Amino acid sequence: MLNKDADIKIQNGVVITCNAVGDILDKGGVVIKQGRIAAVGSTEDLSSWTAKETIDATGCVVMPGLVNAHTHLPMSLFRGLADDIPLMTWLNDYIFPAEAAHITPDTVRIGALLSCAELLLSGTTTCCDGYFYEDSVAEAVFETGIRCVAGQGVIDYPAPGVPDPLKNIATAISYVEKWSGRTPLITPSIFCHSPYTCSRETLVRSRNEAAFRGVLFQIHLAETKSEYDQIKKAHGVSPVAYLDIIGVLRPKTLLVHSVWVDEDDRKRIADRGASVAHNPESNMKLASGVAPIPELIKLGVTVGLGTDGSASNNNLDLFEEMASAAKLHKVNRMDPTIMDAQTVLNMATAGGAEAIGLGKVAGSLEEGKMGDVIVLDMQKPHLVPMYHPISHIVYAAKGSDVRDVIVNGKVLVKDGRLLTIDLEKLFERVVEAGRLIKK
Amino acid sequence: MLNKDADIKIQNGVVITCNAVGDILDKGGVVIKQGRIAAVGSTEDLSSWTAKETIDATGCVVMPGLVNAHTHLPMSLFRGLADDIPLMTWLNDYIFPAEAAHITPDTVRIGALLSCAELLLSGTTTCCDGYFYEDSVAEAVFETGIRCVAGQGVIDYPAPGVPDPLKNIATAISYVEKWSGRTPLITPSIFCHSPYTCSRETLVRSRNEAAFRGVLFQIHLAETKSEYDQIKKAHGVSPVAYLDIIGVLRPKTLLVHSVWVDEDDRKRIADRGASVAHNPESNMKLASGVAPIPELIKLGVTVGLGTDGSASNNNLDLFEEMASAAKLHKVNRMDPTIMDAQTVLNMATAGGAEAIGLGKVAGSLEEGKMGDVIVLDMQKPHLVPMYHPISHIVYAAKGSDVRDVIVNGKVLVKDGRLLTIDLEKLFERVVEAGRLIKK
Repeated sequence: MLNKDADIKIQNGVVITCNAVGDILDKGGVVIKQGRIAAVGSTEDLSSWTAKETIDATGCVVMPGLVNAHTHLPMSLFRGLADDIPLMTWLNDYIFPAEAAHITPDTVRIGALLSCAELLLSGTTTCCDGYFYEDSVAEAVFETGIRCVAGQGVIDYPAPGVPDPLKNIATAISYVEKWSGRTPLITPSIFCHSPYTCSRETLVRSRNEAAFRGVLFQIHLAETKSEYDQIKKAHGVSPVAYLDIIGVLRPKTLLVHSVWVDEDDRKRIADRGASVAHNPESNMKLASGVAPIPELIKLGVTVGLGTDGSASNNNLDLFEEMASAAKLHKVNRMDPTIMDAQTVLNMATAGGAEAIGLGKVAGSLEEGKMGDVIVLDMQKPHLVPMYHPISHIVYAAKGSDVRDVIVNGKVLVKDGRLLTIDLEKLFERVVEAGRLIKK
Repeated sequence: MLNKDADIKIQNGVVITCNAVGDILDKGGVVIKQGRIAAVGSTEDLSSWTAKETIDATGCVVMPGLVNAHTHLPMSLFRGLADDIPLMTWLNDYIFPAEAAHITPDTVRIGALLSCAELLLSGTTTCCDGYFYEDSVAEAVFETGIRCVAGQGVIDYPAPGVPDPLKNIATAISYVEKWSGRTPLITPSIFCHSPYTCSRETLVRSRNEAAFRGVLFQIHLAETKSEYDQIKKAHGVSPVAYLDIIGVLRPKTLLVHSVWVDEDDRKRIADRGASVAHNPESNMKLASGVAPIPELIKLGVTVGLGTDGSASNNNLDLFEEMASAAKLHKVNRMDPTIMDAQTVLNMATAGGAEAIGLGKVAGSLEEGKMGDVIVLDMQKPHLVPMYHPISHIVYAAKGSDVRDVIVNGKVLVKDGRLLTIDLEKLFERVVEAGRLIKK
């Protein structure tokens, strides 16, 4: 007979499973045992389970923790440093100099801690990161208890922690080897910055090393018109076609942004089985353009939703990002049906998990997946009455409605309070770092 | 000697005054006496004041309460009833039937209470409303303590509370007379639904009645392309030109939406001194289009920011609306400089107050204005460090960061809790109403 002693049992909530058929349970919950989801069902179905900790979700929504498919965790230190200026001014006059002067293993660590706190408090349980000193990111992530695909940056310029670009791939490899199989929370990855900052050789070698180690290969691609023009001029084809021709477009390649992709590009992405991370708010704020996500989804491309770093967003709240995604595509196409709430929710849960290579691990409430669950308090003036749970999750709820957060079967946020980090202490260090950065 | 005994003194915060020159104080506050702002200054400057209640704003931002320039308070009852469908289906198959079946003085009252709770908790202290049974809206507004320009709807069809359209203007007049000069919280107004639902005679007569009584005249205008086409077909000119020709475009006319306005229209709006309420999220969600706000502002038009009703948004959080406004125009024009944080903040504060006729009353922290002040807790992972307060307010802060809210010199929200309404009781009634509506 099955042992029905579990670790955590959540019950009496409206359960949005985000499984393949979109099951919603009116009054139910989730049972978590040894870090994994052991059962999903109505409160009655779950009555045979006992648990060390029972969470009453009356008046709440229970759903999988959100998946942020693209971010740069340490960049929280640069949030609001400069806004409302052209992308290249922003990068060249503010972000790159700030990174050159202030990015150290220590600032990476505290910036990542700060972002993880923000993510967890707003209901994101998995994120996909790319930065330098990724080893320090991974350590911070582990400390907070969030789940992360953590990509070491590769770029053909001197970078934080990699002063000699000739060692960029070797650095990424040793990072990947260090973190492979170490903890279920961290999945290492290799992140080539872009086709305009990495040579063809760097791209091909990095891609092959990632394939050899079975890890996700990430790359910023076709974010702006000027990038598109630059690649077209240098290689005679679009950024997507260029990556395809050199063999980088494959399954387990995550294309970040994919704004400037035409019909041929979209077909290439779909045919090669690459996935896409969509970052609508960052693309809006930097005036990069609107990615043709409806078309990509129609072609069967797996798309995840990301916030990008908080320096170009300027927050990591994936609930807000969902609302923006749904609304942006509607007005952009002048069609209110083009991007519905269900599609958006999928990008931020199961689709996002699939896009970053964690489809079997996270993104839905299903038996056998890891225990990444969030509980939202829906007894708020902006959430009562609730006619359709998914509409409320996408259009009305906010990160601040998240009450409890569980990752890998461990309660990290309880009643809106983060249990794993001393925020007051962290703020002191962050304010100190900010003082130096602003100078 | 000036009596320096005040009612409320807020000190030690970063003060964003939103005055004409954009003053920001690093460490200061506001003194409120007999409902009005008696002083704004550094904590040191204010040290000679004593007050019955002192609020410590260390680590907080102190700013004027936000001004929501367009909403339909009772429509909170229809939030999420239907989404992701074309505007006319949404209106004809869901909203209009729901209004016809369920809008009564009682549902208007509880819907308005719910919206006021949401507004106050998210830092909005003034709103500009338009609906039917506006008398019940005004009562609910008064009960919560929020400030409101409350417009009785006029439409040439049978409407809730006005079954005979021949009595629509008379109903509005008697409503305006009832609420004129009654309380500083309520400023009555007349709201003609639109140029396609009101005859020329109704528009002209309503406008003249509003002028005669010195109240704001509101009208939905040029929201969708189909409205534009309809007016053009019926009258041979654009919606704006039509209103101009019949004499409706004047100072104290608030044009809601103004999406489909060409260069000639924009000039007419500016020349006539009419103001505009911009509702970016509703325009996005209903796929109506992007209003040419940068051009209107350049021409000197006073523009306020609104959420529209929560059925087409789907929330009333003006912080989120500010972020959306800034980002939408950037990506729409492919220009990150086109709508900066300062401009957006002005639309949600002083500009908004001016647009709805309360420029001398609300929208900035200045001596003599009414005591409408909010305090935001900035000690959050998404708000530390803070390089530029206005950037954080527009791009990173949320309604849920609002800690204290004061309207007309009265504390309505303290430590995130609403003091004037019993939410639990209200939710019971709202859920009951929702159950009937969903049927």
